[in-house]
Amino acid sequence: MGRWRVAGFRAAGVSCGIKGKGEKDLALFVSDLPAVSSVVFTRNLVQAAPLIWAKERARLSGIRCIVVNSGNANACTGPEGIRSVSRVVGEVSRVTGIEVEKILPSSTGVIGVPLPAERLLRAVPRLVKALSEDGFEEAASAIMTTDAYPKLTRRVIRVGGEKITLLGVAKGAGMIAPNMGTMLAYVFTDARLTAGDLRRIHRRCVEETFNRIIVDGDTSTNDTAAVVANGASAARTLSGEDLRDFELCLRELMEELALKIVSDGEGATRVVRISVEGTSTDREAERVARSVGTSLLVKTAVFGADFNWGRIVAAAGRSGVRFDPEKMEVFFDGARVFGPGLVPDPAGAAKGKRVVKKKFYEVRVRVGKGKGQYHVYTSDLTLDYVKLNSEYTT
Amino acid sequence: MGRWRVAGFRAAGVSCGIKGKGEKDLALFVSDLPAVSSVVFTRNLVQAAPLIWAKERARLSGIRCIVVNSGNANACTGPEGIRSVSRVVGEVSRVTGIEVEKILPSSTGVIGVPLPAERLLRAVPRLVKALSEDGFEEAASAIMTTDAYPKLTRRVIRVGGEKITLLGVAKGAGMIAPNMGTMLAYVFTDARLTAGDLRRIHRRCVEETFNRIIVDGDTSTNDTAAVVANGASAARTLSGEDLRDFELCLRELMEELALKIVSDGEGATRVVRISVEGTSTDREAERVARSVGTSLLVKTAVFGADFNWGRIVAAAGRSGVRFDPEKMEVFFDGARVFGPGLVPDPAGAAKGKRVVKKKFYEVRVRVGKGKGQYHVYTSDLTLDYVKLNSEYTT
Repeated sequence: MGRWRVAGFRAAGVSCGIKGKGEKDLALFVSDLPAVSSVVFTRNLVQAAPLIWAKERARLSGIRCIVVNSGNANACTGPEGIRSVSRVVGEVSRVTGIEVEKILPSSTGVIGVPLPAERLLRAVPRLVKALSEDGFEEAASAIMTTDAYPKLTRRVIRVGGEKITLLGVAKGAGMIAPNMGTMLAYVFTDARLTAGDLRRIHRRCVEETFNRIIVDGDTSTNDTAAVVANGASAARTLSGEDLRDFELCLRELMEELALKIVSDGEGATRVVRISVEGTSTDREAERVARSVGTSLLVKTAVFGADFNWGRIVAAAGRSGVRFDPEKMEVFFDGARVFGPGLVPDPAGAAKGKRVVKKKFYEVRVRVGKGKGQYHVYTSDLTLDYVKLNSEYTT
Repeated sequence: MGRWRVAGFRAAGVSCGIKGKGEKDLALFVSDLPAVSSVVFTRNLVQAAPLIWAKERARLSGIRCIVVNSGNANACTGPEGIRSVSRVVGEVSRVTGIEVEKILPSSTGVIGVPLPAERLLRAVPRLVKALSEDGFEEAASAIMTTDAYPKLTRRVIRVGGEKITLLGVAKGAGMIAPNMGTMLAYVFTDARLTAGDLRRIHRRCVEETFNRIIVDGDTSTNDTAAVVANGASAARTLSGEDLRDFELCLRELMEELALKIVSDGEGATRVVRISVEGTSTDREAERVARSVGTSLLVKTAVFGADFNWGRIVAAAGRSGVRFDPEKMEVFFDGARVFGPGLVPDPAGAAKGKRVVKKKFYEVRVRVGKGKGQYHVYTSDLTLDYVKLNSEYTT
C-alpha cells in the first residue's frame, strides 16, 4: 500500500474556482463501504451554514463521505448559505450514489461572503471522477487556506495479527487566519468498531489534543473534527484491550496533527508545551495552563527567545485559581528557574537561557497543593502574525 | 492656584539612580494634614513586596504619604525585598515625621531583581526637601516606566459655594511593558468625607474605570489604585447629594486616567470602546465584552483599520454566554453592519469602513435577550507591541 492509503477509502482534490488561479479548493473523501463515524463541531455559538445543515440533516454516526471547500467559510450567509450547502450535498449524493444524510459538508475561508454554489456544483462530477486511493495528498492540499503545507499522518497497529490503518488529514489552527482559518481534522480508518465506542473515544481524544492547542485563543465558526471507520480491515471488531490500543493510537495520531497545526500557526516560529501540576483539580490546572498559554506577554517573550519567567509567574498568578504563591516553582525543560519562596532559582538560569532558543520546549509550573494536572501547546506571537492579521482586508 | 495643585498636598520627583542616566525614578506625595484613604491592589495572586508589606503594616484607610520608585518592581524578591520596603518606609517616616503605618509604598519596573535599597535611602532626605505644592508633574514623571508622557488630570466641583479639587496622577497600563508595566493611579483631594464613604465610592469607581481597560489582558504583580482625602477644602463634610456629585466627579477623573493609560498602551494607535447590551445580566455582558476586547484577531484588525465584523461576531460567539445568534447585531459608531438573521447589513458597510480608520470609536454588540450591559476599552495590537515585548531582554 502507498504511503497515504487506507483500505476502502478514496479521496480527491480539484480546483473549482473559488480561490482562483487554478488553486485547489474542493476536496472529497469517500468510504467505499458503509461506515460508522463521530463528528465534533466548534463550540462557538455562531456556526457556519454547513454545520447548521449537518446538525439538522446528517446522521453524524454514519458519515461515509466528506465534501470540503476552502476559500469561503459559508458563515454569516443566512438562509441562502444553507440552501447552497443543500444543493452541493445533493449533487455529491446524486453523482456518488451515497445517501444525503451520510455526507458531511465542511467549509473554510472568508466569513460573510455568499458561497459561489454554481462553481462547486459544476465541479462535483469532475471531483467524483478524480477519486482515487492515492488522492489524499491532493485532498489535503485542497482544504488548505493559509497553511504553509498539507498536513497528513498515518499509523498502523496490529490486532490479532491483522493490520489496522489510521490516516489523518488536517488544516489550519483555530482562527489563526483572518476570517479564513478554521481547524478541520479528519481521520479515516479501516478498523471495525461500534459507533458508540468510536464516539466515546473520539471525544476524549479531541479533548486531549485539538482542545489543547492555542494559537490566538479564538475559535472559529467552522471548526470540525471527524473520524470515519469502515471496517475494511481483516481485524476483528475492537473491544476491551484492542479498543484501548486503538484509542492510544488515535490519540497519538491526533496529537501529531494538533502539533502540526500549532507549529504552522501563522507566523509561528516556536511551540511551547505549558504543563501545570499540583493544583487541587485538573480543571484548575487547565485554567492556569490557559492563562499562561494565552498571555500575550508570554507569547511575545517566546518569540523573542527572552528568558522571562516573570511573565509566566504573573500569568499563573492572575488565572483566578487559588494556591500558595510561596510554593510555586517554574521549570524550563526540567531546570528549575523560579521558586519556592517567590524568588528566582539562579541555578537554572543558564540552562533556561539556552532552552528559550529552542524550537520546541516545555515550561512546567508546579504549585504544591494537589494532584491536578493539565497541559496546552502554545505558539509564539510574532511580527508576522500581526502583519498577516492586520493587513488582510475584507 | 497652579494647574496641578490641590490644597494641603505636596509632591516631589527625583533621581535616585535606579534607572541611571539621571532619569527621575523616585516620587513622594504627602498630605500636610491627616487624611482618610482607600487603596485597591492587583488581584494577582503573586504580589510584589511593597504590596505584601502594606497589607500587613499600613493602615490603608489612613494613608497620607505615598512613596513610589520606578525601574524596579521589587517583585519575586523574597524576604530581602520586604526588608527593603521596611527600610525605605522607615526612612521616609524619620525624615517627614509621618507615622510608618500612614505611608503607602509602591514600586514598578523589572521583576526578580533585588531593589537597590541603599540608593533609595540616600535619596530620601533630598526627596523630602524637594516637596512642593507644584511638585506633581515631577512626581508624575518619576513614576513612569515605558509611558510616553506623564499622566495628570484635575477636576474642581463646588459644594455649598466652596471649591473641592481632585488631582489624579497615573502611569502605565496593566502589564503592557515587559516585566516593567504596572498601573499606578493616585487621586489626591481636599474633600472632607468619612473613610467608609471614600472606600465604597473608590471601589465602585475602580470597577467602572481601571478594571475596564484592556491592553494585553495581563495584570501585574504591582497594580495599585489609591485615593487620599485630607479635608483641607472649606467645603462641608460630604454626604447625600454632595457625596453623589463627588463620586461622579471622581469616576470621570478616573475614567480620563484610564483612557490615558490605554491610549498610551505600548505601541497603541487606536482605542475602541466595546459596548455589549441585551444579555440577561451585566456579568454576561462583561464576558462577551472581554471576549471581544481581548481577541487578538479583533485587536490586529483594529490596528490595520480592517473593517472586519466577522472577527467580532466570532469572538462574541465563543464567549461562553448563551444567546440566540440570529438576534445578534453589531454597530460601528451607530451604523449597523451585521444582523439580525446572521447576515451582514450592507447598509452600514460604507460607514463602517470609514469608522475603522478613526483613532477612537465604538463597537456595539446587541443580543436581543435582556437588560444586561457592560463596556470595556481596548487598544489595538500593533507591530510595535510585539517588537517592544519580544526584544526586551531580562
